[in-house]
Amino acid sequence: MTKVNVGVTDTTFARYDMAKIAIKEMEDNTSKVNIVRYTVPGVKDLPVASKKLIEEHGCEIVLALGMPGPEPIDKQCAHQASLGIIGTQILTNKHIIECFVYEDEAETTEELIAMCEDRARKHARNVLRLLFDREWLTRHAGQGLRQGHPDAGPLKP
Amino acid sequence: MTKVNVGVTDTTFARYDMAKIAIKEMEDNTSKVNIVRYTVPGVKDLPVASKKLIEEHGCEIVLALGMPGPEPIDKQCAHQASLGIIGTQILTNKHIIECFVYEDEAETTEELIAMCEDRARKHARNVLRLLFDREWLTRHAGQGLRQGHPDAGPLKP
Amino acid sequence: MTKVNVGVTDTTFARYDMAKIAIKEMEDNTSKVNIVRYTVPGVKDLPVASKKLIEEHGCEIVLALGMPGPEPIDKQCAHQASLGIIGTQILTNKHIIECFVYEDEAETTEELIAMCEDRARKHARNVLRLLFDREWLTRHAGQGLRQGHPDAGPLKP
Amino acid sequence: MTKVNVGVTDTTFARYDMAKIAIKEMEDNTSKVNIVRYTVPGVKDLPVASKKLIEEHGCEIVLALGMPGPEPIDKQCAHQASLGIIGTQILTNKHIIECFVYEDEAETTEELIAMCEDRARKHARNVLRLLFDREWLTRHAGQGLRQGHPDAGPLKP
Amino acid sequence: MTKVNVGVTDTTFARYDMAKIAIKEMEDNTSKVNIVRYTVPGVKDLPVASKKLIEEHGCEIVLALGMPGPEPIDKQCAHQASLGIIGTQILTNKHIIECFVYEDEAETTEELIAMCEDRARKHARNVLRLLFDREWLTRHAGQGLRQGHPDAGPLKP
Repeated sequence: MTKVNVGVTDTTFARYDMAKIAIKEMEDNTSKVNIVRYTVPGVKDLPVASKKLIEEHGCEIVLALGMPGPEPIDKQCAHQASLGIIGTQILTNKHIIECFVYEDEAETTEELIAMCEDRARKHARNVLRLLFDREWLTRHAGQGLRQGHPDAGPLKP
Repeated sequence: MTKVNVGVTDTTFARYDMAKIAIKEMEDNTSKVNIVRYTVPGVKDLPVASKKLIEEHGCEIVLALGMPGPEPIDKQCAHQASLGIIGTQILTNKHIIECFVYEDEAETTEELIAMCEDRARKHARNVLRLLFDREWLTRHAGQGLRQGHPDAGPLKP
Repeated sequence: MTKVNVGVTDTTFARYDMAKIAIKEMEDNTSKVNIVRYTVPGVKDLPVASKKLIEEHGCEIVLALGMPGPEPIDKQCAHQASLGIIGTQILTNKHIIECFVYEDEAETTEELIAMCEDRARKHARNVLRLLFDREWLTRHAGQGLRQGHPDAGPLKP
Repeated sequence: MTKVNVGVTDTTFARYDMAKIAIKEMEDNTSKVNIVRYTVPGVKDLPVASKKLIEEHGCEIVLALGMPGPEPIDKQCAHQASLGIIGTQILTNKHIIECFVYEDEAETTEELIAMCEDRARKHARNVLRLLFDREWLTRHAGQGLRQGHPDAGPLKP
Repeated sequence: MTKVNVGVTDTTFARYDMAKIAIKEMEDNTSKVNIVRYTVPGVKDLPVASKKLIEEHGCEIVLALGMPGPEPIDKQCAHQASLGIIGTQILTNKHIIECFVYEDEAETTEELIAMCEDRARKHARNVLRLLFDREWLTRHAGQGLRQGHPDAGPLKP
């Protein structure tokens, strides 16, 4: 069976190895994907790494993992990276699922690690759904799903 | 009769199923469209989903629905998504009508739901007008039309 | 005589019909242009409408009219629209003269209407100059010309 | 001898004729360039004017001069213009040297005029260096050169 | 042996010659690269200079060095430059490693110089790793590596 190439880009700047979690989650859930990993220094290097995975390594979809620092300049870098990730998707017609955890998003290290793991796992599953089960996503449209936090759930009147 | 393909993109992040409202509004008003729906995790995934609907699913126009959260980072995500939606339109020469409702735009859940329904319905009608009745829009140019709120109306000296 | 196609894009969101003023101004000043009007819901729809006017309707130049609302989100929408308008110009090598009036730019409704009319008229003339009399613009370079306000005039040492 | 076409774009919005200063500076320093000037209403029209100079008028490089006003909206316009100027360079592989003076950058009119003249002159020389003497720039790398202000100079430990 | 062309872009605006440090670091570590240097006036000129190095000088990768000033406008310029650098990477499928040091990032001149040297050296090594040893980067994924500062290290639960 021909497998689908799935790209995973991540950084040496991040302080937690989310790629490992995400790759395990995908491999535990399917044998239909072949993971291609590409690690870069920081989040601003993710757009071109993702584009190379798509155009030079034949990936159908990419999961881009990053952990921006707590300073304003770090958030600006993340903003630039996000714009580049969206631009790359538009130019390639392929999804790049962005999974960023901000270093100041949690109050304790334990919480931050739990958030990294939850977000990486759930976005890994989103990657598989976009590839193999888009119907699942439509069934959950408007349901307030969250990654890194408990689901917010749908609005109740 | 050949129908026109109309794309509808929405998210699992949103807390209300605006697509259902919008699709019903379009189908109640015309039998000339064929709806193609594409649900993604969050608003930043809408630009490429819209582009795929246009280029891979033959859609003439897309309605992109999202409900950004209340945090500053959520607003930044929505800003990035909007820029991507505009970029996609420029590259494809097709309209993508953005219908976003911010989770903190209303004071109560009831109001927020009413706003979602009104905005989705009115933008669904805008999609049909761009396809079949551009003259209607020109007749209402400068009239202060609103979606999700009552019309502001034209300036009165 | 073959006329030059001039596009005019405007919105139903705006609360004043600036296109009417601008079109009259152009038609009063020349018989060499053929106006093609395209009305869309809001300012974020102007970039693609302008691009369609250029590429599908053969317009040599476009005047894009909009009236963003007073809220921060409205200003962000206008910012996105402006970026899209600049992007469209770069991709097409055609001018799109942006004529936006912010709803909170004047203190009274009368002032706001006067500002709309002045800006629309002056930018309509700028469109004609870019088409037929670029020399006029160079003669007025650095002269502090304004639209919607009295001219600031050149700096005097 | 074939001359190199050098574009100069400027605006009627500006309150000082920086193009005149810059053109004189270039013509005083070399007989190898042929200036092509293109005046537009405001800074947001500079990107496409620069692109037209490059692609339709055969310019090898462009100097883009502007004087944004003192209001927040003026700064946002300048930001959009700058992004468009960078985008144009990337699409054409030609330099566009941006020379903007903010109307509130100096405290008196005399200072503002002096700043305009200094910045226009120095960037005019930068244009010539990029064309004919890139070695000069590398010799001055990291030297804290400024335009419109005295040079900051290199850091001294 | 054919060497790989590595581009280095830097500015006359910067107050420290980081390119010299970076080039020495690369040449001390490998004989497989051929450095091509391109100095421009300021950070906003880096995107097109990098693109020219890639497309006209055959560079496989570029290191872009800059030192934005301490004012808000300087930070906005850096933001624009960063977006242009990301855009250039996406269009060329080549990495451009951005190495910016903000003039107000350190408290003393000594610290600022040390930061420049550390960041330039470490990013020079990142360039070599992206070219010749991507495996190294993956081994250090999520390890909290920093340039210009001591490494933050991985999160410890």
